[in-house]
Amino acid sequence: MTEKTPEFLAVPGVRLGTACAGIKKLEHRDLVIIELAAGTQVAAVFTQNAFCAAPVIMARQHLAKAMPRYLIINTGYANAGTGAQGLEDARQCCEALAAVAGCEVEEILPFSTGVIAESLPVDAITQAMPGVVEQLDAKGWSEAAWGIMTTDTKPKLISRTVEIAGKNITLTGIAKGAGMIRPDMATMLAFLTTDALIKSDVLQDCLHAAVEQSFNRITVDGDTSTNDACVVCASGQSGIEVSVGSTAHAAFLQGLTDVCTELAKAIVRDGEGATKLINVQVTGGANQTECLAVAYTIAHSPLVKTAFFAADPNWGRILAAVGRAGITDMDLAAVNIYLDEVCIVRHGERDPTYSEAQGQAVMNRHDITVKVELGRGTDRATIWTCDLSYDYVRINAEYRT
Amino acid sequence: MTEKTPEFLAVPGVRLGTACAGIKKLEHRDLVIIELAAGTQVAAVFTQNAFCAAPVIMARQHLAKAMPRYLIINTGYANAGTGAQGLEDARQCCEALAAVAGCEVEEILPFSTGVIAESLPVDAITQAMPGVVEQLDAKGWSEAAWGIMTTDTKPKLISRTVEIAGKNITLTGIAKGAGMIRPDMATMLAFLTTDALIKSDVLQDCLHAAVEQSFNRITVDGDTSTNDACVVCASGQSGIEVSVGSTAHAAFLQGLTDVCTELAKAIVRDGEGATKLINVQVTGGANQTECLAVAYTIAHSPLVKTAFFAADPNWGRILAAVGRAGITDMDLAAVNIYLDEVCIVRHGERDPTYSEAQGQAVMNRHDITVKVELGRGTDRATIWTCDLSYDYVRINAEYRT
Repeated sequence: MTEKTPEFLAVPGVRLGTACAGIKKLEHRDLVIIELAAGTQVAAVFTQNAFCAAPVIMARQHLAKAMPRYLIINTGYANAGTGAQGLEDARQCCEALAAVAGCEVEEILPFSTGVIAESLPVDAITQAMPGVVEQLDAKGWSEAAWGIMTTDTKPKLISRTVEIAGKNITLTGIAKGAGMIRPDMATMLAFLTTDALIKSDVLQDCLHAAVEQSFNRITVDGDTSTNDACVVCASGQSGIEVSVGSTAHAAFLQGLTDVCTELAKAIVRDGEGATKLINVQVTGGANQTECLAVAYTIAHSPLVKTAFFAADPNWGRILAAVGRAGITDMDLAAVNIYLDEVCIVRHGERDPTYSEAQGQAVMNRHDITVKVELGRGTDRATIWTCDLSYDYVRINAEYRT
Repeated sequence: MTEKTPEFLAVPGVRLGTACAGIKKLEHRDLVIIELAAGTQVAAVFTQNAFCAAPVIMARQHLAKAMPRYLIINTGYANAGTGAQGLEDARQCCEALAAVAGCEVEEILPFSTGVIAESLPVDAITQAMPGVVEQLDAKGWSEAAWGIMTTDTKPKLISRTVEIAGKNITLTGIAKGAGMIRPDMATMLAFLTTDALIKSDVLQDCLHAAVEQSFNRITVDGDTSTNDACVVCASGQSGIEVSVGSTAHAAFLQGLTDVCTELAKAIVRDGEGATKLINVQVTGGANQTECLAVAYTIAHSPLVKTAFFAADPNWGRILAAVGRAGITDMDLAAVNIYLDEVCIVRHGERDPTYSEAQGQAVMNRHDITVKVELGRGTDRATIWTCDLSYDYVRINAEYRT
């Protein structure tokens, strides 16, 4: 794997540093520190998993007390299922960084990702800190994108500019995640930054809205992590204000949603063992809930996912998944299903014009849309998932070896 | 694969016949007919999938009109997602058998299993019928168990005797199923017979109770089939009556539940690509719903299933699954988790006495129990599942090739 450097735009007020701290067995970047300029406004969403990790608990506590100046992220160990010792380990990491950086402990948010239920190697992390802080750099994005990866095969780094009143603000973000992906009100780790001038409560509302349409619309394997977190940091250094009700607000929200969506789709494309990106669109639902139920039932079906892997137009499996999605009063005669432009089911039955050759042509593609028209109302939902391959099993069978 | 003949007990009043009708590409038994003596009482449960198959629709209709004299089962094609033509095809099969056997069309229940959304080869089926009817035999159980298999690698045939008032009644049943297994109020195909004398409404209640604790407690991949059906037929030829409220009733229900449970576990053991049987026990729940939610979240987790395949005691994945099962007010300090006799989580944290060697010893076994104590109440639930291996992907990627 060569380290191709994704293009990015630095964000005034944000510097990053990365190290090989020896947390993982192999020589690998595994520690990232993100420095935020004084005055930066921060918003965040976290996993809803009841067994949330120690760093998630601590990050929530710190965020309630102060605006963060530093984010510290380690890979290798998730520091989840580690109880009181886990909280103590996270606290020690924050204290060590506070000492090096000269800030309060509460101004640091810790994040961890990796193996669950094993202890964090605190010494390795704290020993690497001074070196990381020394080399903090506004151009450190690419190394940071690599540094937060676990089973990811590609770094996920996206930049966008948004024009507001004739001037540009910048949005740059990184994310990691390839397995244990079924975010719920949050995501795997994602760190978004901007130089927009925006208050933290407005930023929090924007983040919720953006995440709901992006990270909360993807699934690789249906497994919600103990460590999911998505953070957005606004340094304000562009001087361009984003306040509620303004056109700037709409433009900023759209830009943030775009960046989140691109990162979310990058996670699915890089899903463990994934060879295909599957867009599942459900339209004509009576409400959001049933649209999402149908979409996720398709997206989580191992049979549907293996059919996509095999490029087998065995779409009876899609039909079976729609049928078991929990809509009790479904009118089959109103249901149409498409694979890209090919109608496979019309009025609840095999489309009379469908041919296996048409289905095969779509299945050979690497980016496929499954569209289900329920014919019950006007609601709709789109989610993204990937196929299920031999490599998913291999990666997860060999994860700790 | 050698055809080892499972042992069985014939049931007076029940005869079976099997043929290689050429429905499948290869020479393979693919058509089974079960004849029931006059007076046989029949009860059945069917799939809850909205896209239920044509034979399911027709079997329900016929059962509402008459007590069945014949069950006809084909493999190769599921006759699901086939619309009006599918119903016509199922009707033609029933009509052909009625003509050969000399009974009413409504006295025949059709069952199909195989590829969804492709048409049934009616001619092949009807042409093979006279030969099958001619060789109907009370000893035809083993061939029938083989004849209803699709991706199954082993026939599933169980016999039990139940002593009632000093005499024995016989229970013998067959089942098929290896993938698309998450029965919901029904199962894959299962055909149970007995010579007990029992009315159809009492039989229906017994079947519901037995299925709820057996076929409705297994999952291979979470996919509920369009064709699930479980039928029990009581010929009455033992002359031993089973009526409500009697000790005979309790004994019969226990026997029926035992046979269903053995067949259900045989399905999971033979789950596509399965190398292990995983028993998931959840105790201390506030109600059944949350016990089952926790159990199925563990059983459906691809990460948990690949860890079992790899014999990797990466039990953080079990912890994460418990945490995302939807119990919003879980008291982590009350949660204990065991792998067989080894406590891995005590009071919500890694058990202080746990060692990787202990976990590894359990994971090397082929029959493993995951026990989760929720500490919230007295309810409990047990389900059975299997691991997720390379072969699951291979079998389902190659299914139609």
